[in-house]
This record gives sequence, structure tokens and C-alpha cells, in this order.
Amino acid sequence: MTAPDRTRVRRLPEKAVTDRAVLDAILDAAMVAHVAVVDDGQPYVLPMACARDRDRLLLHGSTGSRLMRRLATGASTCATVTLLDGLVYARSAFESSMNYRSAMILGTCRALEGEELLAGLRILTEHLLPARWNTLRSPTRKELAATSVLELPLTEWSVKVGDGPPDDDPADLDAPVWAGVVPLGITIGQPIDAPDLRGVHDPTTVVEQLIGRFARPVGE
Amino acid sequence: MTAPDRTRVRRLPEKAVTDRAVLDAILDAAMVAHVAVVDDGQPYVLPMACARDRDRLLLHGSTGSRLMRRLATGASTCATVTLLDGLVYARSAFESSMNYRSAMILGTCRALEGEELLAGLRILTEHLLPARWNTLRSPTRKELAATSVLELPLTEWSVKVGDGPPDDDPADLDAPVWAGVVPLGITIGQPIDAPDLRGVHDPTTVVEQLIGRFARPVGE
Repeated sequence: MTAPDRTRVRRLPEKAVTDRAVLDAILDAAMVAHVAVVDDGQPYVLPMACARDRDRLLLHGSTGSRLMRRLATGASTCATVTLLDGLVYARSAFESSMNYRSAMILGTCRALEGEELLAGLRILTEHLLPARWNTLRSPTRKELAATSVLELPLTEWSVKVGDGPPDDDPADLDAPVWAGVVPLGITIGQPIDAPDLRGVHDPTTVVEQLIGRFARPVGE
Repeated sequence: MTAPDRTRVRRLPEKAVTDRAVLDAILDAAMVAHVAVVDDGQPYVLPMACARDRDRLLLHGSTGSRLMRRLATGASTCATVTLLDGLVYARSAFESSMNYRSAMILGTCRALEGEELLAGLRILTEHLLPARWNTLRSPTRKELAATSVLELPLTEWSVKVGDGPPDDDPADLDAPVWAGVVPLGITIGQPIDAPDLRGVHDPTTVVEQLIGRFARPVGE
């Protein structure tokens, strides 16, 4: 289901998007999802590293956390990913807003184990640190035992996109203020060597890969 | 309470921070909080524009949303703000991570009304669009009726900060890979005029104010 009742966009439905390719593009540009879990009636929102793999979102955590254990055992959850694209300067406070792309996924998670866990960890690592996995040693059994990768199916989701210029009331158009959009981008900075660096001293490839995946240049 | 049981950081407690000034700095650099609300047992995570005002976080939404109404009527919530500062390239997948600053606030919201609503909207607008409010006309009664500003007290909260270089196992230090941190920054881009711009044609002040508040330069 792409738009069942629980994920139907009721507010500003003109911003709702039901195109699966848009969902994928948002998730593929994201590093972190904000994931809800309810414990004893209290909701918590955890930032978790994420990566899309076909029809599922993978989430990375630690096995030691109580909230992660609740997620791993099938508690209802919601994972939301938000990319901020710009600040919208309208001629009124009311029409001022942000341009963004946001995806919300509802469902329950399943904890990966064994070969699935290793494969999931590889996908997460390859997403966040592109082309890195094959250059690293394999995780040890002890490391895998301390690692949790959760899978959330992309079945029940909704996407909202706000873009474009301000949409002002015609009566406001002569207001003596600038109006338009100030774009927000993400910059991949100069790498900082580890103080105990012994091996390779050239991070050029690392940075090029990251720029290709996550940089959002906006023209300064 | 700065660290009651529900917000005590159990995982990686060395990353926990109890300094209120650190909480304030995170919230003051944030544009969006991810806010949880539970409806019929299902948690939802909503991205909401946010601004700190002294001992409270203000959240902006619309009065028409069912989930916003639940928040406004005192449903338990959690608002989480996450700033991504860098990608940590360790010599193992296990030690690879992200540098970040994250704040989680638990509690219940109160919807502002009347003069409080107008003051809250002003604070939110001044945070996200610095120095803009005084240049705009006042909101109309109808606009205020369609605007929701929620207040979440900063009483029960926790902060986690991950920073610094990778922390590798000594046995991994000779791995033939680069290791270090690639910083992530936020760029304020070139403003894009509204197509129907009539008034002021120079957004320089707007952009300078935004850069001062939200840009996170990292050296490209």
C-alpha cells in the first residue's frame, strides 16, 4: 500500500507525493532516520543511521539498548526522514515556510541475524561510507553480536514535498520586503586525519565518493 | 530534572552530556525537531519547525492536523533534534560511526493562545528567518486561528554528543586504509528571487543573518 488511511496526507495534501521513486530518492539521500518507539506509554524518537535496500529501510543500532530491543521485537514504529532544501521568505509570516522533502514509514521492524545481519551491515556501511567495506577487515563474531540491524519494510509510507517560491496573498505582493527562497545545502568538508594515522594518507577517493552521494551544492 | 531515569543515557554513556548550555546550543542551531505522537497505539514522527525560547522549545504546526491536536491536548511526546557533524572513518566497520549532537526532550505540549500565540510565532519566525518579523505586516486574526504553536518545557531531557577521531582497536591501526573524520557542514546558498518580486531586490541582509545563525562551514 502506498497511501492507506494511516499515512494519507491530510494536511496540505497538495504537498503529498505517491511516487515510489520520490520515496527512494529521499531515503537514498539520507544518513539518519528519526525512529519512534513507545515504552510504557511514553514515545521516544531515536536518531538512527539508515540505508535503503530495495523494498526495506535498514536501521543501525546497538543490541544493548532497551528501546532497540523493543523495536527488534516488533513494537509499532514510525521512521521519518527529512531533508531541508531551503527557507521560503514570503511577504507574510503566515506564508513563510521551509522547502523540504520528508518521508514517513510506518510498520514493525525485524532484527537481522547471521548472514542477513552481515549483509545488512555491509549495505549500511556502503551507503554511509561509500566504497569502504571492501577495504576493511570482516567484522568479528563478537562485533556482530554487539551490532543490531533492523529492517523496516517500505509498505506503508507517505511522502511530503514542499518546494518552489513563496505563495503570497496577492494583497501582500507590494510589501517592501525581499521575497524568495534561500537554498540550504550540505557540504562535505576537508578530511581530518586520525592522530594515529599510519596507513594510507590520501583520502581523496573517500571524499569524492561522499560528495557524489551526499553533497547538495546550492551555489554560495 | 536534567537526567531522570527516563532520559538517562544508557548506551554509550560516555557520550552523555548534562550541561544545559550544550542543550541550548544544539536547539539554537536547529531548524527542525522530530516530534513523536502516539495515536491508537501507533507512534508517528512529525518534522516540525522549532525554536528555543528560554526554558521551552516552541514547535510550529497547523491547527487542522489530527496529530497536532493530540499534541496540543497533552499527549506524551518526545522531540528530538539531531545535528550531523561528520562521518568517522575507522579501520573497522564496527568502529565506523558518525559525529553528531543530539538532544531528546520528553514531556507534554501546551498550545499557545492569544497574545502568547502571537509572541511564540514571532520567536519562531525570528529564529528561522532572522530579523524578518519587524519587516512584515502583523498576522491577521484568521491567520492566527490557522496557526498552532506548541510549547514543550525543557525539564526532562538528555543530550548525546559524538565527536573526535575514530577510536580503533590497537590491532587495527596498521590496516592499509585512510582513517579520520570527514566533516559535514550546512551551506546557505544564493537566494532565488520570487518570480513575482516587486519590492526589495537585495536579499544581502537576509542571507548574512542566516549565515550567522545556521551556516556550519567545514572547509571544502
